[in-house]
Amino acid sequence: MTGFVSLVGAGPGDPELLTLRALRRLGEADLVLNDALVHTDLLALAPKAQRFYVGKRAGRHSIDQAGIHHLMIRAAHRGQRVVRLKAGDPFVFGRGGEEALALEAAGVSYEVVPGLSSATAAPLLAGIPVTHRGVASGFAVISGHAEAAYAPILDSISPNALTLVVLMGVARRAQIAARLIARGWLPHTPAALLYGASQPGSFTQITTLDELAAAQGPEPATELPAVLVIGEVVSLADVIGHLHPVPLAERSL
Amino acid sequence: MTGFVSLVGAGPGDPELLTLRALRRLGEADLVLNDALVHTDLLALAPKAQRFYVGKRAGRHSIDQAGIHHLMIRAAHRGQRVVRLKAGDPFVFGRGGEEALALEAAGVSYEVVPGLSSATAAPLLAGIPVTHRGVASGFAVISGHAEAAYAPILDSISPNALTLVVLMGVARRAQIAARLIARGWLPHTPAALLYGASQPGSFTQITTLDELAAAQGPEPATELPAVLVIGEVVSLADVIGHLHPVPLAERSL
Repeated sequence: MTGFVSLVGAGPGDPELLTLRALRRLGEADLVLNDALVHTDLLALAPKAQRFYVGKRAGRHSIDQAGIHHLMIRAAHRGQRVVRLKAGDPFVFGRGGEEALALEAAGVSYEVVPGLSSATAAPLLAGIPVTHRGVASGFAVISGHAEAAYAPILDSISPNALTLVVLMGVARRAQIAARLIARGWLPHTPAALLYGASQPGSFTQITTLDELAAAQGPEPATELPAVLVIGEVVSLADVIGHLHPVPLAERSL
Repeated sequence: MTGFVSLVGAGPGDPELLTLRALRRLGEADLVLNDALVHTDLLALAPKAQRFYVGKRAGRHSIDQAGIHHLMIRAAHRGQRVVRLKAGDPFVFGRGGEEALALEAAGVSYEVVPGLSSATAAPLLAGIPVTHRGVASGFAVISGHAEAAYAPILDSISPNALTLVVLMGVARRAQIAARLIARGWLPHTPAALLYGASQPGSFTQITTLDELAAAQGPEPATELPAVLVIGEVVSLADVIGHLHPVPLAERSL
């Protein structure tokens, strides 16, 4: 009896945005280890599985990274099929690479199943193409979680050269906007705060770089994850995707 | 009778990496307009649909962009359910934004269904996390299709500041590498050429920036699309994902 671990990207939240492979792995799982940002609807897709919450929320760590590694490895050695379910894509932030290295070092069979990162899915669902002919020929993705990590990258990109996507960037939006303006980004560069893409209660707020600090977010305040997008492509949100919705039931699950 | 258009991301090629929503739209489609890079296996998932190839290959345009817009709009006005099936993600290059604007201007109902971009899925499937704690805190994505578009972006990023992902970048790899080295990137920066991610015949080639021009690619030469990844994270491919594959049948479709 050999167990194994699938590091699975859950996408932005809506179960319909899972990949077919992710759905299959959930259906076969004996154990699911899930993050805070993983939508609870997704867990219903793993009916046979024991579920274990290993996320962090509001600074409280339920379990540390080494503990997550230990849980995965122990379960695999017992012969279980483990799904480590991660919001978005396992290798776009989220420490999937560290988990893969730990599994590799322990000699555990594993795979990585890509998921839709909210770095591209959140803008898309708000009508913002991260690239657009004549407007933006590239985009950069950073995390707003730790200033020591993102500040050198902000400083390394010429002003307004590409679309900038900041995951987990809402809390630091004032510092990020100030830093970019000080670097020479145009104060009137369009900026969007995208809360809870694809999830119930999702909320889009369009502003500009110099107004970003004052942007209030949804009322009442929400714990939905949020993505910050900065660049001229944000202005396309006014035109794309809102006037003519498709007449479909949006959920089949 | 009202038709509508779904701009659908097909992901990198393997049908298992479709989203559930994409699968459903294909199953309901009356007409599928597909690109060159869309894997033929995916078209079998639209059994009721008429299929029309609108791709470009080796410089030959079967139909121009305005022609694609015209086809979508005409079919929707006839009441058809149209899937415009695009490799990867509709809004990561690939002109999905332009198609959305054309549909909007014509008053056609439409939606955009995100897909896995090979910008992140190709590195992941080769064991390369585009971000990794202590190695890379961000990544940038450009297209190698047109030098006039990518050159200013390459020039706008400080050397070795983040992971660089170049879609459609193989043909211009020599120019891109020379430009980066001239800008100050370390010549020994690891670089990977990822051919046909998730598809039969996929092939990974690991090299360095200063050897990139000489990299020969797979033998025999292939028409598989390829992604170029440049940055220290590439060195993780040697460790992650190859020694302990999961003992699973990989396809269920």
